[in-house]
Amino acid sequence: MANEYYLAIDIGATNTRIAIGSRNGIIHKIIYRTPREGNELSIAVKIYEEIKKNYGKYIDQIKAVGIGTIGPLDLRRGRVVNTPNLPIHTFELRDPLMEWLKKPVYVLNDAVAGVWGEKFFGLGRNYSNIAYITMSTGIGGGAIVNNHLLLGKNGNAHEIGHIVVKYDSDIKCGCGGYGHWEAYAGGANIPRTARVLAEKHKPLIETEAYQEALRGELTPQKLFEYYRRNDLFAKYVVEEIIDASAAGLATTINLYDPEVVTIGGSIYLYNQDILKEPIIRKALKHLVTEPPIIETTPLGGDIVLYGALATAINPPEDILGFYK
Amino acid sequence: MANEYYLAIDIGATNTRIAIGSRNGIIHKIIYRTPREGNELSIAVKIYEEIKKNYGKYIDQIKAVGIGTIGPLDLRRGRVVNTPNLPIHTFELRDPLMEWLKKPVYVLNDAVAGVWGEKFFGLGRNYSNIAYITMSTGIGGGAIVNNHLLLGKNGNAHEIGHIVVKYDSDIKCGCGGYGHWEAYAGGANIPRTARVLAEKHKPLIETEAYQEALRGELTPQKLFEYYRRNDLFAKYVVEEIIDASAAGLATTINLYDPEVVTIGGSIYLYNQDILKEPIIRKALKHLVTEPPIIETTPLGGDIVLYGALATAINPPEDILGFYK
Repeated sequence: MANEYYLAIDIGATNTRIAIGSRNGIIHKIIYRTPREGNELSIAVKIYEEIKKNYGKYIDQIKAVGIGTIGPLDLRRGRVVNTPNLPIHTFELRDPLMEWLKKPVYVLNDAVAGVWGEKFFGLGRNYSNIAYITMSTGIGGGAIVNNHLLLGKNGNAHEIGHIVVKYDSDIKCGCGGYGHWEAYAGGANIPRTARVLAEKHKPLIETEAYQEALRGELTPQKLFEYYRRNDLFAKYVVEEIIDASAAGLATTINLYDPEVVTIGGSIYLYNQDILKEPIIRKALKHLVTEPPIIETTPLGGDIVLYGALATAINPPEDILGFYK
Repeated sequence: MANEYYLAIDIGATNTRIAIGSRNGIIHKIIYRTPREGNELSIAVKIYEEIKKNYGKYIDQIKAVGIGTIGPLDLRRGRVVNTPNLPIHTFELRDPLMEWLKKPVYVLNDAVAGVWGEKFFGLGRNYSNIAYITMSTGIGGGAIVNNHLLLGKNGNAHEIGHIVVKYDSDIKCGCGGYGHWEAYAGGANIPRTARVLAEKHKPLIETEAYQEALRGELTPQKLFEYYRRNDLFAKYVVEEIIDASAAGLATTINLYDPEVVTIGGSIYLYNQDILKEPIIRKALKHLVTEPPIIETTPLGGDIVLYGALATAINPPEDILGFYK
């Protein structure tokens, strides 16, 4: 058998990463700024140019292309539609890249690709029921249940960021709902949520974190910095994030009954020392199913890229039903 | 083709019902009290006797038997293990009935059977992504995602009653956790939850419902009776049930992305006039996926029996993986 290579692409709001890999994993990767100007084809054009430039000489040995992208996705047409996270809100991926590269191209939501990566390259290898949770700018997830990638009617059966963790909350989510997990723990929402908490609960000591929060400037990075300096208001906000996340994690487990759950995403990965133990301990108290293994993903910040690679090598049969 | 019949069995904590049916639906059914005394075989023995007595003359034309039962289930061995709802906590179903009847026997959790019934006999017929929710003594559910019956590692991927709808709640669930949907809206928990609410929120007028609640005697039946008489405390408790249920319904939809959700169970079916419109209206505000059709199940109180019949006719391929 000649060498078989695959291309993996991770499209984020800030960076796009492209890797060439094989069944053994990623061989080489490049990273560049995701285009913010242009039309519906600009993102695909840039991907095609980077592939030609970096991996052009391997093109005949490339069997397929997998993409994990920010959503929301139109899974049937392999494109991103109305994403709030890029100035180019709607853009084509599958159709132009298939035409130009003359290879099969499979597109998944990034967190859904993530769980597929966990199954083939990470902790999910020996399991049929797996969930992956990412705590980053937003909260996202993907699940494999009885070996099927969970998709739902439009491929969106993974909106775990919008689990309602407090039904009578006055903390507003980016989606307009109240009391969602992502409203409390999604990086983009933390400054606004911290301000609401600061306005409601004036502490005895007006700490630095409290003052930043009142100005709406308590970013996730600052929040955890203050926490590490024992700022009491930062501790309070982080405690709310932990409690909301324990509830969200438990609900995810109760609804998917996985054997293994992995957690990743920048907010979690950079602050595991603070978040991991209490989130898991508190989630276990809410479970009625047998507790799964709950671990940090060993694929770290590359999980979506691994997921895209796994998708190229072994496209989940459930997405093929959408490709008609 | 000779006439093909199937047996359907719905084992509840109070009553067991057995029906004979065909691909066209239920033909005849019987009902009796579920045995409360005996050993691990007593429930199966009673089922076998009732089948012989009522449907013995059709036995050669019966192709298979489907069972929807109270859980929790040991799906691999087709038996109920440690159910809190019957004095006989653990009992055999599949193995003895297969041996005595010499037919294939398939066992599912009652709410999971329910969604399978919805797909074959109810509102789910034209859909690939379906959820069924039952609001009764407890809150339960079942889901079909991309035509696969959702089971999870132990067949328990439907513990929607234990969705955490309020992470900082002091309302305790039967399972020991706090703030679960079932803690607020499960019939068995309503008297206790109403008491906690009464102790915390003394109303201006100490209504009859409030006094019953303080004594821990505000049963679901009384609660809705008082509500219909405009008792203000009953209105307040029902409002909490509605808000918690809207959150639970929305979370279920966000995690399964169904095309259609049906709701049943005695608490809901008897009080639809009060519950249906506000639960749906409030749930829609929490959705990020495209809203599904949300309707009362047309199968009413027979949904589990229809589910057992559908399971006998068309056993979900995903449960066959457990039968090894």
